[in-house]
Amino acid sequence: MTNKLGVHALVWVGGWSHDECERAIAQTAELGFDLIEIPALDPSSIDTTFTRRMLDRYHLGTTLSLGLDDSTDISSGDPAKQARGEARLMEVLRVAGDIGATHVCGILYSAFQKYFEPPTPTGIAGSVEVLRRVGEKAAQHGITIGLEVVNRYESNVLNTAAQAVAFARRVGLPNVKVHLDTYHMNIEESDLESALIDTGEMLGYFHIGESGRGYLGAGNIDFDRVFRGLVKAGYEGPITFESFSSAVVNKQLQGILGIWRNLWEDGADLARHAKGTIEHGLKAAREAHARSTLP
Amino acid sequence: MTNKLGVHALVWVGGWSHDECERAIAQTAELGFDLIEIPALDPSSIDTTFTRRMLDRYHLGTTLSLGLDDSTDISSGDPAKQARGEARLMEVLRVAGDIGATHVCGILYSAFQKYFEPPTPTGIAGSVEVLRRVGEKAAQHGITIGLEVVNRYESNVLNTAAQAVAFARRVGLPNVKVHLDTYHMNIEESDLESALIDTGEMLGYFHIGESGRGYLGAGNIDFDRVFRGLVKAGYEGPITFESFSSAVVNKQLQGILGIWRNLWEDGADLARHAKGTIEHGLKAAREAHARSTLP
Amino acid sequence: MTNKLGVHALVWVGGWSHDECERAIAQTAELGFDLIEIPALDPSSIDTTFTRRMLDRYHLGTTLSLGLDDSTDISSGDPAKQARGEARLMEVLRVAGDIGATHVCGILYSAFQKYFEPPTPTGIAGSVEVLRRVGEKAAQHGITIGLEVVNRYESNVLNTAAQAVAFARRVGLPNVKVHLDTYHMNIEESDLESALIDTGEMLGYFHIGESGRGYLGAGNIDFDRVFRGLVKAGYEGPITFESFSSAVVNKQLQGILGIWRNLWEDGADLARHAKGTIEHGLKAAREAHARSTLP
Amino acid sequence: MTNKLGVHALVWVGGWSHDECERAIAQTAELGFDLIEIPALDPSSIDTTFTRRMLDRYHLGTTLSLGLDDSTDISSGDPAKQARGEARLMEVLRVAGDIGATHVCGILYSAFQKYFEPPTPTGIAGSVEVLRRVGEKAAQHGITIGLEVVNRYESNVLNTAAQAVAFARRVGLPNVKVHLDTYHMNIEESDLESALIDTGEMLGYFHIGESGRGYLGAGNIDFDRVFRGLVKAGYEGPITFESFSSAVVNKQLQGILGIWRNLWEDGADLARHAKGTIEHGLKAAREAHARSTLP
Repeated sequence: MTNKLGVHALVWVGGWSHDECERAIAQTAELGFDLIEIPALDPSSIDTTFTRRMLDRYHLGTTLSLGLDDSTDISSGDPAKQARGEARLMEVLRVAGDIGATHVCGILYSAFQKYFEPPTPTGIAGSVEVLRRVGEKAAQHGITIGLEVVNRYESNVLNTAAQAVAFARRVGLPNVKVHLDTYHMNIEESDLESALIDTGEMLGYFHIGESGRGYLGAGNIDFDRVFRGLVKAGYEGPITFESFSSAVVNKQLQGILGIWRNLWEDGADLARHAKGTIEHGLKAAREAHARSTLP
Repeated sequence: MTNKLGVHALVWVGGWSHDECERAIAQTAELGFDLIEIPALDPSSIDTTFTRRMLDRYHLGTTLSLGLDDSTDISSGDPAKQARGEARLMEVLRVAGDIGATHVCGILYSAFQKYFEPPTPTGIAGSVEVLRRVGEKAAQHGITIGLEVVNRYESNVLNTAAQAVAFARRVGLPNVKVHLDTYHMNIEESDLESALIDTGEMLGYFHIGESGRGYLGAGNIDFDRVFRGLVKAGYEGPITFESFSSAVVNKQLQGILGIWRNLWEDGADLARHAKGTIEHGLKAAREAHARSTLP
Repeated sequence: MTNKLGVHALVWVGGWSHDECERAIAQTAELGFDLIEIPALDPSSIDTTFTRRMLDRYHLGTTLSLGLDDSTDISSGDPAKQARGEARLMEVLRVAGDIGATHVCGILYSAFQKYFEPPTPTGIAGSVEVLRRVGEKAAQHGITIGLEVVNRYESNVLNTAAQAVAFARRVGLPNVKVHLDTYHMNIEESDLESALIDTGEMLGYFHIGESGRGYLGAGNIDFDRVFRGLVKAGYEGPITFESFSSAVVNKQLQGILGIWRNLWEDGADLARHAKGTIEHGLKAAREAHARSTLP
Repeated sequence: MTNKLGVHALVWVGGWSHDECERAIAQTAELGFDLIEIPALDPSSIDTTFTRRMLDRYHLGTTLSLGLDDSTDISSGDPAKQARGEARLMEVLRVAGDIGATHVCGILYSAFQKYFEPPTPTGIAGSVEVLRRVGEKAAQHGITIGLEVVNRYESNVLNTAAQAVAFARRVGLPNVKVHLDTYHMNIEESDLESALIDTGEMLGYFHIGESGRGYLGAGNIDFDRVFRGLVKAGYEGPITFESFSSAVVNKQLQGILGIWRNLWEDGADLARHAKGTIEHGLKAAREAHARSTLP
């Protein structure tokens, strides 16, 4: 198993100006990560030519993530919003293709917002339809779609791995997979390790983040179980570290995510520690797995 | 240590009609709980005479809980909202006095809502002022105020035990204390046990709830550490079980709380199991504490 | 799943006189357990007629457990010891049949002692042979054999579940199964839950005991994972609580087991708490399992 | 907090010939450890001049560890054994002084063996007396004595931190302290974190080892709690990684320790991983501690 390790750009920068783009990519590469995840909430803000040049210069892979918003909510059952959402996702795919992203992930199936009512069957069916077309387009670019399971305060559609597996099966494409994130799993799953194992080969992307969203191991999540779950699930895809502090976050995300505390100041120290923690934890989990089955 | 055990009324009923009131109180008493926590989001909906008669008939204690809303937000820095919030809290104290409640708790210091900006120092100072007057009034009725620490999606003011201890110290009254809740702690605290120990004698009320808000032990929280924390903190106050399912919850709360899944159907089975789990867990924690310090 | 719950006789008594026999059986039945596990280190000390009468009187099931000793060590490679060991096991089967025991379990494959050298292939092969004949005899009485996996200080043959599964497969009889014990698993297994799941249908008997061997939950073992492992393994056999205190233990066992501390005085309080802890924990695990797989 | 990190020589070599000595010291230094712990079960086997030269050459610190045996058991109450035990300990101190060891630790208060009877008050009193004289001598060399708390199968005197604190207080010297080891704590303590915090400033030496004694994180111990306990205890002394595999262990220790399984082959890979795991874990614990107390 040789998972690529990544880091979310918001560990470094709150925007994507040329300066921010180069700084984030250079620092990610310097720490030895394999990829950077770039937020594409506003895909038009990404200068694809410049971004691709920087990725090439620093020999770094990339992925894109986003959440839809109310006006592009493909789970709303509103045909106008669905159409705008599909257009947005297609635009992101184009950006992804242009910069060479291997994965597009996040809250692609609904708005990224606090809902006040449960979803409707019609809304869900519409979301599945759109994602099937998006997935087919993505397949043409060799891009994997990751449907991110988030907590109840960020979407009302996919809050658990089991829901996401069922949803992805409805979409029914080999490149439309489940994206799990330990920060959200800690809030919603009965059992993080089991959720990973049960998702199994449907797992296509993975976010590692601590409860509270600060230093790995400085919170409340039992990462030993997480690493063992990844190993038992046979997961070989990317593992991307995500962390948000009020030290580096733009106003829009601070509001949606509720980032009221400062959990770190030095993103490089944070990311270096995350990488080491993941590497040592994965190795221990592989040893545990190998040894525990010896007769 | 002899904590009183309670259950939140929403395990039984979504409103507080005479029928719901009697049913909730009777079922709580039947399972051997010491108290019921009644939601007072709309204090005028509580028939205090009838409620008190039912509590007396079934020999049950009670507490009240609420969150303020946007129009009564005492942390807003808006004098009109502050005035309305203070009036609301004073009204709840009157209801509490009338039904013999020992504690008034919840999100008393801000609105109970998803915020999109951090709080301001002026807003916080105003909230402290109001709560000082509310606390003084509560003291006259022998009522303890519990400032509930909740996750980032339900308030932007108090998300950690340490913040709440500092806030309560600013209020500076012996009957204004910290109210912790394991569901929220799981999202925000670095360490549930340490948070309890560090809160120590400032802890005045306690909610026990599972991640996901279903059956105790069927989620992700390490309750062994929670019970040990309570024992080491020397906590002797109420322990109230809180759980929400789409099976029993009114529309308003479903929206704010994001209750999208049905985690149980039978509140009696749920509450009986919770009571046994708490009793066995507390006993084990006391044994561990007693034995581990023997020379 | 309806596991029978049992308790080890040493929670009540250090020997098996008529008085001890009746007292242990009566107290076990009074707490609502389904069975009592009787130690058969010295099978000749068990008055089978009296014991059966008491079991019938109190409507209690039973199982027998033992470890071989140096002179009866069937893993020694010494034909004389092997012959004596086989005779001892056959004698225990006779006692088991006479009192209506459903399971014979423990360290049946080697001595119950601190070894100073690793086992030999010849010794292991001899042990397998003897246990095949013992297993065939047991099958005639409808008795299940449980090969107890113990820590490195009590045997050098079976210290992990994976070893025991391989050993039991060599014996190759449907009624010769693996007997796991959480006290020992805590010392030897990489992962208690995985060991249970991987043992799966080979699991034939189960001891639940805390690290330190006192009150369940007052030690170091994560029983939430244990209960989830039992549920995921689909285990429907007996769950027997085992605990040793210097308050009730005979000299011989105190020495072998190294019982130097007094972890409880009141066996009834201990056993009542254990039963409640098991029942609540199993229910929570079943809820977690059922809920986590819902789409 | 800047704990020195060490590794036990048995990760590298089973004896202490010149070749083994240089190899163990060179490999320890190469991985960036601060010290090597050398077993001194047979102090006469250590060529002090050569060892010191190697330590100097590789700029490495050192500590010594041992257990007494039956013939030198100072807890036996037998004056002849006590005298031999005292002589042995004094000899080890001399070796420690010669090679510049900062700590002498291990089972210094009894034999390192499986006992079959509990200790006697007279035996314990004799052990305290001897250790007071040994401690005074050690103080002259600036050496700290660490009384290692081990599991019930390796001694009958000190099995828990609380027992060791009481024992060390009876000795009553500032340089006679408690030595805790996570492998043993996992078997005996109710709560690893609490045991560390309660030991507090009495903690003088620390062994980190996994259940099963293999790769850190590949077993059953919750090291997050361990690191947090060390941080909360304010421990600034050495942290030495100990691991035993049948790949590298001499016959004598294999027998006493019951090393029946091979948990690793490559000591360098094992030790490198241990060092990284400790460093990342300590950092996370310090972050958790710092952040959890912020208002």
